[in-house]
Order: sequence, then C-alpha cells, then structure tokens
Amino acid sequence: MSRKRTIQIGIIGAGRIGKLHAQNLATRIPRAEIAAIADVNLKAAQQLARKYRVENFHDDYQKIMENTSIDAVAILSSTDTHADLMIAAAKAGKHIFCEKPIDLTLEKIDRAIAAVNQAGVKCQIGFNKRFDPGFKQLHDMIRSGKIGDLHILRITSRDPAPPPPAFIKSSGGLFLDMTIHDFDMTRFLSGSEVVEVYAVGDVMVDPIFSKYGDIDTAIITLKLASGVLATIDNSRRAVYGYDQRVEIFGSGGMATIANNPPNMTTYSNARGVVTSKPTDFFLERYLDAYAAEMSAFVEAILDDKPIAVTATDSRIAAVIAMAANKSLREHRPVKLSEIK
Amino acid sequence: MSRKRTIQIGIIGAGRIGKLHAQNLATRIPRAEIAAIADVNLKAAQQLARKYRVENFHDDYQKIMENTSIDAVAILSSTDTHADLMIAAAKAGKHIFCEKPIDLTLEKIDRAIAAVNQAGVKCQIGFNKRFDPGFKQLHDMIRSGKIGDLHILRITSRDPAPPPPAFIKSSGGLFLDMTIHDFDMTRFLSGSEVVEVYAVGDVMVDPIFSKYGDIDTAIITLKLASGVLATIDNSRRAVYGYDQRVEIFGSGGMATIANNPPNMTTYSNARGVVTSKPTDFFLERYLDAYAAEMSAFVEAILDDKPIAVTATDSRIAAVIAMAANKSLREHRPVKLSEIK
Amino acid sequence: MSRKRTIQIGIIGAGRIGKLHAQNLATRIPRAEIAAIADVNLKAAQQLARKYRVENFHDDYQKIMENTSIDAVAILSSTDTHADLMIAAAKAGKHIFCEKPIDLTLEKIDRAIAAVNQAGVKCQIGFNKRFDPGFKQLHDMIRSGKIGDLHILRITSRDPAPPPPAFIKSSGGLFLDMTIHDFDMTRFLSGSEVVEVYAVGDVMVDPIFSKYGDIDTAIITLKLASGVLATIDNSRRAVYGYDQRVEIFGSGGMATIANNPPNMTTYSNARGVVTSKPTDFFLERYLDAYAAEMSAFVEAILDDKPIAVTATDSRIAAVIAMAANKSLREHRPVKLSEIK
Amino acid sequence: MSRKRTIQIGIIGAGRIGKLHAQNLATRIPRAEIAAIADVNLKAAQQLARKYRVENFHDDYQKIMENTSIDAVAILSSTDTHADLMIAAAKAGKHIFCEKPIDLTLEKIDRAIAAVNQAGVKCQIGFNKRFDPGFKQLHDMIRSGKIGDLHILRITSRDPAPPPPAFIKSSGGLFLDMTIHDFDMTRFLSGSEVVEVYAVGDVMVDPIFSKYGDIDTAIITLKLASGVLATIDNSRRAVYGYDQRVEIFGSGGMATIANNPPNMTTYSNARGVVTSKPTDFFLERYLDAYAAEMSAFVEAILDDKPIAVTATDSRIAAVIAMAANKSLREHRPVKLSEIK
Repeated sequence: MSRKRTIQIGIIGAGRIGKLHAQNLATRIPRAEIAAIADVNLKAAQQLARKYRVENFHDDYQKIMENTSIDAVAILSSTDTHADLMIAAAKAGKHIFCEKPIDLTLEKIDRAIAAVNQAGVKCQIGFNKRFDPGFKQLHDMIRSGKIGDLHILRITSRDPAPPPPAFIKSSGGLFLDMTIHDFDMTRFLSGSEVVEVYAVGDVMVDPIFSKYGDIDTAIITLKLASGVLATIDNSRRAVYGYDQRVEIFGSGGMATIANNPPNMTTYSNARGVVTSKPTDFFLERYLDAYAAEMSAFVEAILDDKPIAVTATDSRIAAVIAMAANKSLREHRPVKLSEIK
Repeated sequence: MSRKRTIQIGIIGAGRIGKLHAQNLATRIPRAEIAAIADVNLKAAQQLARKYRVENFHDDYQKIMENTSIDAVAILSSTDTHADLMIAAAKAGKHIFCEKPIDLTLEKIDRAIAAVNQAGVKCQIGFNKRFDPGFKQLHDMIRSGKIGDLHILRITSRDPAPPPPAFIKSSGGLFLDMTIHDFDMTRFLSGSEVVEVYAVGDVMVDPIFSKYGDIDTAIITLKLASGVLATIDNSRRAVYGYDQRVEIFGSGGMATIANNPPNMTTYSNARGVVTSKPTDFFLERYLDAYAAEMSAFVEAILDDKPIAVTATDSRIAAVIAMAANKSLREHRPVKLSEIK
Repeated sequence: MSRKRTIQIGIIGAGRIGKLHAQNLATRIPRAEIAAIADVNLKAAQQLARKYRVENFHDDYQKIMENTSIDAVAILSSTDTHADLMIAAAKAGKHIFCEKPIDLTLEKIDRAIAAVNQAGVKCQIGFNKRFDPGFKQLHDMIRSGKIGDLHILRITSRDPAPPPPAFIKSSGGLFLDMTIHDFDMTRFLSGSEVVEVYAVGDVMVDPIFSKYGDIDTAIITLKLASGVLATIDNSRRAVYGYDQRVEIFGSGGMATIANNPPNMTTYSNARGVVTSKPTDFFLERYLDAYAAEMSAFVEAILDDKPIAVTATDSRIAAVIAMAANKSLREHRPVKLSEIK
Repeated sequence: MSRKRTIQIGIIGAGRIGKLHAQNLATRIPRAEIAAIADVNLKAAQQLARKYRVENFHDDYQKIMENTSIDAVAILSSTDTHADLMIAAAKAGKHIFCEKPIDLTLEKIDRAIAAVNQAGVKCQIGFNKRFDPGFKQLHDMIRSGKIGDLHILRITSRDPAPPPPAFIKSSGGLFLDMTIHDFDMTRFLSGSEVVEVYAVGDVMVDPIFSKYGDIDTAIITLKLASGVLATIDNSRRAVYGYDQRVEIFGSGGMATIANNPPNMTTYSNARGVVTSKPTDFFLERYLDAYAAEMSAFVEAILDDKPIAVTATDSRIAAVIAMAANKSLREHRPVKLSEIK
C-alpha cells in the first residue's frame, strides 16, 4: 500500500461492541475513517451510521467486501460468524480486525488463519487487555528487568454478573469465553509459552451453568516453558464488581496491578472507611484499551508495522482453553501437545 | 435561539489551552463544531485548523465576531485580552466561554460582566476543576448529607514546577493565578460564601518570585458564612508532581480525595513498596474535566440551561484572592467586604 | 548515682493513665520496678498494687517522697496537682516523670521548673507522641535530608468524642489540653521554634464547650523561626474515630503519616470497599509510645542520658497554646514574645 | 485441677522460639509463671532463666517432668524431639504446648497423640497464625456471613529468605515445614476439610534445595469438602520481605488481608510514592499472635476450656502436606484418603 494519511474501515456488526469501536474510530483515531457499517439488522446499521455521519450502511456485509475504497474491516458480529467473515475479507484483500475468539473449533480457526496467510493481509484479534495502560506498564516493567527472573504469576479475573443464558449457551464455556483473556495475558506478560494446564472448577454462582455443561468458578494452574508457575482464578459473579488483578513475582521483586477505581474518594464514618468499587464493566474499564488496540491496528497498516496480537496468538489461547477443558473433564494435568 | 442540533464555535487563541479545547470540541463534543480559529500568530491558527479540518482561520479575532454563523466564542488567549474580547463578543451577540481569570483588576472584570449582562448572552468561565469527576462526586456527597454539617475544609494544591518567569511576571501573583482555583473550589464544595481571609506566605521555592513581588508558598485560612473553617496550602513546586487533594470534615463523617495515579501498579522490592506519582500535569489530570466543562457550556446554550460557573463566580474568587493579598501585605485577617 | 541495674519508681495516681503506666512498668520495662503506688483513693492504689504484686500502697503521696529506696516518681494524678508534686519530688531528690501539662499557668510552671533545676533531678514530661514509632520515623526521615528544606507542615488531630463536662471545665481549653500535643509535635518534627500564631475556632460539636468559654473546632497557623509554615486542625469529635495524621512537605519531597488501622483487612461488597476505622483511642493508638517514653525516662536515669522531653519543652508548648488563645480572643496573629 | 490463679510452666528449649515464648510468659501472660527452663545447652537455659528471674534451669528435660509443681510444659526444642517429649510429658501428667510440627512421620505423630489421649492432658500445637488479630478477624467475618457462601480462598505465603542449609536438610521439605501453616489456615478459615491436593513446584530460588530433594517455589490447589476451591503460592525468598496475605471470595463479597506494614508513613519524591516493606520476619510479624496462643493455652487449662489447635489439627495439616508431596512426585491430583 502506498503511504496514505488515513485508512477506510468497514464495520461489520452494530451491536454493543460495534458501537464502542465505531465511537473510538470516529472520535479518537484520526488516521482512520468509517467508510461503511453493515449489520443483519439494517436499522441498527443505519442508526450507528447516522450518529457518526457515515454515508454507507447495509444489511449485507458483502457490500463492504465489494467496496474497493475500503482498506480494512472490523469484524464485530457474533462469534459464529467470525471465521467465515475473516475468510471473505481475506479473499477481498481487506486487512482484518476481528473480535476474539476467531471460533470455538480449531478446524475453523485454522481455516481462517490459512485464508489470512494466503491473502497476505494484516489480521489483528481483539485481545484488548494487552493495550490497557496498566497491563502494558507491567509488561514493560517485566522487560526492564525490575522483576528479575519470573517465578509466580497470579491472575484474578472475575465478572460482576453472569452473561444472559443465551450467551452462556453459545459462549464455548468459561475457559474459551472468559479465561481465554487470562491465558493470553499470561503469554503476553511472561513472554513464555504454556506447556501444561491443570483446572478445577464448579458451578457455585448459578445452576444455569450446569444446564449448558458449563462452570462458573475455576482455578487454573499453568506451567510455562520458562519454568514460571501461573495460577488464574475466575468467577462469573463478584458482587463488588469487575475484578481484574495481576501479580507477578520474581527474583528481583513483585509487581501487582490493583483494580482501577472510578475515583479516588474515601469516605470515613462510624462504620468504617469506604472507597469506590472497581470500575465496572469491561466497556468502561477497558475504554482506553479498546481505543489503543484499534489505533495499533490502524498504525500497523498505515506504517506497515507488525500486528500486536495475531490470529496465531488467538489460536494458542484457544488451545490452552481446550487443554483446561480436557483437564477438568479428565481430572488430571494436560499438556498442550495433547490438543490437536 | 431555535432548537438546533449543534452550535458553531469560534476559537480565539491557538496556544496550549486552545489546542486542548479544540481537540475536545473536535472529538468529544458531538453537539458543537469549530467554525473558525483565530490567533495573532496566523500559522498557529492555520495548523490547528488543519488538524481538525476547520476551513476558517484568521490572525484577526474580529473575523470571528463578524461571522454571523458563529453562535459562541471560546476565549483562550492570554489573560490581558480576556476582558476586551468578552466585551467584543457580547456586543456581537455571541455566547462566551472564557478561560479564567477574566482580568486581574475588578474594574475590567466589572466592565466585562456588565457587557455580558447587557447583551444577554450566556457566559461561562473556565473553572474546570468543578467538572472533575472526583470533585463533582465530593460535591454531591456533601449535598447528600453524608458529611452532615460541614466543619473543616482542607485543600492542598501544589504545582510540579514554577511557571516560566515571563508568566510569573504577568500572572497576578500566586493567589490570583493559582489559589483562585482553590477559592472557587471552597465555594463550590461548601455552598457557602467566604467572609474573611488570613494568609501567610513566603518565597521558598525560587528567588525569582521575589523579583516580581510574588510568593511561591502559602497557607490561607478562610472563614465561611456558614461557619465552616477552611485551610488551603499551596506550593509552586512539589517534586513528586501535581498535588491536588481535598478533605471535607463534618458532623457525619469525612471525605477525602487523593491524587489520581496514572495507573494502579505497585512495585515491591528490597527498598520498599512503590506506587506511581500523581498524574502530572493539569492538562492530563483534568483532561476529562476540560471536556466536561465545554460540554456543559454547549448544553447550557442548546438546551437553555443555567451556566455552571458564571462570570460572577469568577469575580468572587478574584475578590477572595485580593483579600488574601491584602492580608499578606497587612499581616492581619481581612474581610471580603474590605475589597472594593 | 552508682551504676544500678534497675530503678525503683513510685507511682502517684492510680487512675486511667496510672494503670497504663503501671502495666508498662510491670511488664515491658525490665530495668524499672514499681516500689509503691499512691492515690487519694486508697482502694484504687491497693487494687493496682495487688495486680502487679507491689507491696506498698498509700493514700498519701508523702509516703513515697519519704521512701529513700525510691529513685523516681511518676506523677500521674490530676493536672492541678502536677506542679506541687513536682516541687515536692524535686525537694525529695527524686527524678520526675510527669504527665502533661505541668500546669495551666506560666507562674506555676516556672516554679516547678525552678525546683527541678535547683534539685538537679532529671525531669521528663509526658509528650508521648514523640515516642510513637511512626512519628519518630518521620522525625528521622526529616533529619536524614529526604524532605530537603522544610516548607509546609500539616497536622490533623481530632478526637473521637468530647471529654466529659467535668474534664472540659478544668482542661484549660482546646489549645492547652489537646492542641498542645500538636504544638510539641511541630517543634519536634521541624526542629525549629514557633514565632507567631494565628487561630480561628468555634463551637460546632457540642454547645457544652460554649458554657465553659471553650471551643471544639479550630484551625491554627504557625510561623516558625526557620521559615516553615504550619497548619493544625482540631476537632473534639470525629465520628470515624481518633484521627492523627501529619504531613511534612519540603524541597526534597513529602512524607505523610496516615492513621494506624487496627488491622489490614479489606472487605468488598456491593456497597463499596471497606477498611477499618483508625485505632481508637489514645491508650491503644499510643500503646507502644507510652511504653517507649517510660523506657526512655528509665534509661536517661540509669545511663545518665539527656531527657527527651524536658519541662522547658512543656513550657514552650504551653506558651504557644496561650498565644493561640490570645489570637482567638483578639482576632489577630500573635507573636510568642507577647506571652509573658 | 482445682481453680488456681496461675499455672507453673516448664520450658524445654531455650533457642530462638524458646526465648520468644519465655518473654511472652514472663511479661504478657500474668496467669502463668515459668517454673523451670531446660535446654541441652545448659548455658542457654541458664541465661534465659536469669533474664526472667527463673530459679530452676537444667540441661536435662527429665528434671522438668519430675517436678510435681509444674502443671504444663512448653516443648520448644528441635522438631525431631517433639514426639518423644510429648509422650514423656503426657506420661508425667503435664499439659502440653508443642511447637509445630509434632513430627515428620504419621507413625510418630500418632504415637504422640495416643499418649496425650491416654493421659487425658490438654495439648495445643503452635499454629500461631490462627491467633493473629487480622486472620482471626477474617475468620470471624466469614462466620458472620459477610462473605456468604465461600467460593475461592487464596493464600500467599512467602519467606524473606531461605533458612540455613542445615535446617533445610531436616525440615521435612517445603510443604511440611512452610505450607503446613497455610494448610492449617485453609481449614481454620473455611471451616471445611481438604479432600484433594494438586501441587506444582520447582527450585527457582536456590539450587541448595535440589540437593536435599526439596523445592523452594510452589503453587498448590486444594478442593475442600464444602466445595471451596483454594490456591496457595509459596516462595522461600521474597526480596521485599515476609509476604503473608489471604483472600476469601464468596457469594456475599470478598475479604483480603494485606501485609502488615511496620508504620503508616508514605514518602513521595521525584521517583515515586514509597511505603514500608511488610513487617519482617515472623517473630515480629506474629508477635501478638505468639502471645495470644500461649494465653489461650493457659486459659484452656485454668478455665478448663477446649484447646484451640489440637494435635489432631496438626496431624491433618501434616497429611495434607504429605498429599502435596505425593502429588508433586506423581504429577497428579491426590486425595487425602490415599495418605495412610
């Protein structure tokens, strides 16, 4: 691509996450323009297009693939459409930003990756947490040597409330839907690959999870190639809100990330000293991270830089999740090499 | 004014604060559009205009006053121009957003206020801290009764480093330039008027302040009409960064606002447990507050709502600052009624 | 005195503070032994003596003065008896530990000091906060140069609840009873003398204070010989408990002491994040400080070291309190040299 | 036993932990008296006896067993002597306080327990952390229902530095020496029994551990009978000091215990905001806990109350540690029922 000042992006999916990315592209990312918005619900596409003065809106994503003025697509539709849309976009020669996960099966993930590779387009997957200023700073602190040799990594990731039943049903389960972020964070922070997984988990929050063969509470232990031992704990419901913490411990020291409070106010009265609950929920907590990941995608295209989170990164996180599922089922530590 | 969807704003002043407001107007305030940018330095006006795709840029602010499609002006030029520009804008029937202070003399402040009142335009002064989410929450907490009867208010406001000598010379001095924010905050939080001021202060940070008859360190005690006792401490240089804290104490409890850290990372090693310095400096610390105050201004015009911080509010804060100066000079508590 | 392994101490006063010091002497200070306990209430003396297996108890303090095996007395009776007991002890050649204040009048303070000086006995006054590990560490941090040149000192000192009316009546008022600790702390931390005081204050907590011509809420501004500016705020009732904080700000940095929580537990639920109220009240908050001051007194005698808090220190704190009273009455800054 | 006012205690072992308990018994536990001190090193026994004015000191513990005026023994000698001393004390009809662990083999543990049961004496094992005010408060908070149903328990327990090689050799390994406290804490807080253990661990801190077939870093996952999932992480060296934290998460909220700082001072300068490292090491961190456990033991005897931490509690913790060792060796989750 010749050196352009801005790129034209076609958005596919005008739901919650579609709206968020549209807002960021329209207001915070000057080097990109929204060229068109498609959604199977035409009205949703139209409303979002009007809000940001985008001329083109469609109920058929093919219109976007056929639009030669569009450089890249942002695939923000439901998970079951991701792989096919990636393949279509790759064939149309569009660069791809796709929300995680690519798919719930390795087969479709691999087909999507093959299509991307064949087309030679750039493809970034939406592991937005890597772009959070706090986690990024932790990553850089580790690289700077302040932690020394890494020994123990602990991640706590708990949602404020379970998703709706319809979502649970098609989510792929706790590990593929939720812990997958923590698996990716483990790789991002440690710079090392997971070799073995042991998972325990149960239904403690809501019996609905049993109905879909899912769990809502888990502790996962990971062994990494570098020797680092990692432990992740998850819950689908923390009554105090969205709980997102990381701790890294090594020979040189320890770094922890506490939850982001929405403000720094402390209130003291006869009952105690009260501060704010964590910023809730992910759209707000990771507001800057969502903007930063899309900026990075736009820069990777315009400045021909490497993609920060590749489709292969996404595949690896999915494999770890599958190993965790197998560990839970078979009640034993499972090596990643067992997942084919 | 008929119910319009957006207003057209003319920016006067393309310096540091002009750039900030331009960015907010362009990216975060959908109901306003920048119609023109004027600066005595035409190149500065042009560069800023180009960045946000604004067609009109001028080296003469009169062009903005004469442009009948412009609803409101944002006066972001140097302090000595504020009053005259307010008068010109009022005569041109433009609504006015003006950075603080209106002027360093009561005479010019009063002339500007008179012009605004006569023209019947809306006029908001840039006491941005009122719009900071933390201070706003503290304000609301007080109103909710959680603090009970207010007894003691403490404000700490310290800059990371002194301004350049040229600025010091024309700043009006510590109280009119810096403490004026804290005087306004005292009124905003307490909901009560200051009746008496006692100030002590000295040059401790840099002898340059002596040269201009100014001070760089001060403690100010205020008595409020409601009986609240307030204490403010200021310094022109806190080596650990921008220090902005408030504490309100009353019969029902206490609320404090700690400094905003840029991240929630804690690093522990053999030397201690280290967290981040406060977010530094005001452009970053009050990023959201600047956007919120301009939003409020735009909404006040479009929805015909009352102005949040009026020119009279600004005048009162200036009078308190003048009383503080008199107290320092005469080494005694000074009543506001002594300032004419 | 020949090098002895332990000293014999006579306790005068078996009330609340007498019990505390008796416990410390009996269990935490191996180099001292309680030789006798006197109290006008013989039963109180007897009970306390029995608890710590002390053979001698009296209702007449003269028995202690006459007991030649006793090296030192701890004067822990009511304030109005302090000066006379000091004089009697000095005449009897006993070293003296006396609770603060020596007296509420300079005349009696000066007579007591004269007697001590004439007798050549060692005399320590109970400004226990100097011995608190936190304040001591702050003191040492200042001496080490980490704060650089001191600019601003802030002390917050608020009691959890007003004392009983009978105490208020004979307390000497807020400044002589309560702020006197903060005046001493100002001198201790800064290493500089107060030269001028400005005080504002009022009755906000309980009208009972008006009845005795006292106040319950105050802000005091101090100018120090070194140039340091200090501000103290006091309240007789903080509903969240005993509030004891100090902040020192200078050219090299800032150090703050937060309240001591009784534990490090944090509880998060749907309403917020709650930690413990401060340790309440002074007997518990300064438990270690009380033991440390008595240890220092015992060591000063046995090892012939200088006294840490002299009667003169106590006199100076009283003079500052008197200047604060005069400032409040006369509504102007008052120099210490005005107090005779 | 008839209702006595105090009990006579014989101390066996005058090393580091012997000195600590002697100090507590002498100065903080008025209802107990040290009747005799025995140590194979007679000089050590003599010195400690002299310090607290104890008349009897021996190099043969049998002297204590034969002393009929002694009600109870405190077994504070090296681990390999614990079981035999417990048996001897039980036969002599003495109540027993014994430092953890009873022994490194179930066979000897069971013989000691049998002797205690047969003699009908009271026996408390030194799991001191149960008596820490913070952990106790957490325990009570859980019982009060504030956490709701417990879901996840997390314990971090890291030492500041590895013990000396001689100690490592005879320690029984990480799980029996160090994690055993965390296993006991898991039972204490949850009120539930561990049913299965999975452990990963390695040598990361110091190769010396390999030499003795030991590890220095571990993550242990526990399943409890109540359904609670627990995770413990250990390290033999945290460069920032003694790290002792617990978090309990449930349907009603979360409670965490942070490290105890030695003071509440915060220092801010150009490099960041620094607070103190955790209180280091266990003798200081658990100072109050050591006194409280001995008080509880004395009260259990004098007031005939149940023992807080029984020999059976100690046996169960040892069994969990053995299951963790087996899990590590066999690389699979191990049920407690597998340990015979």
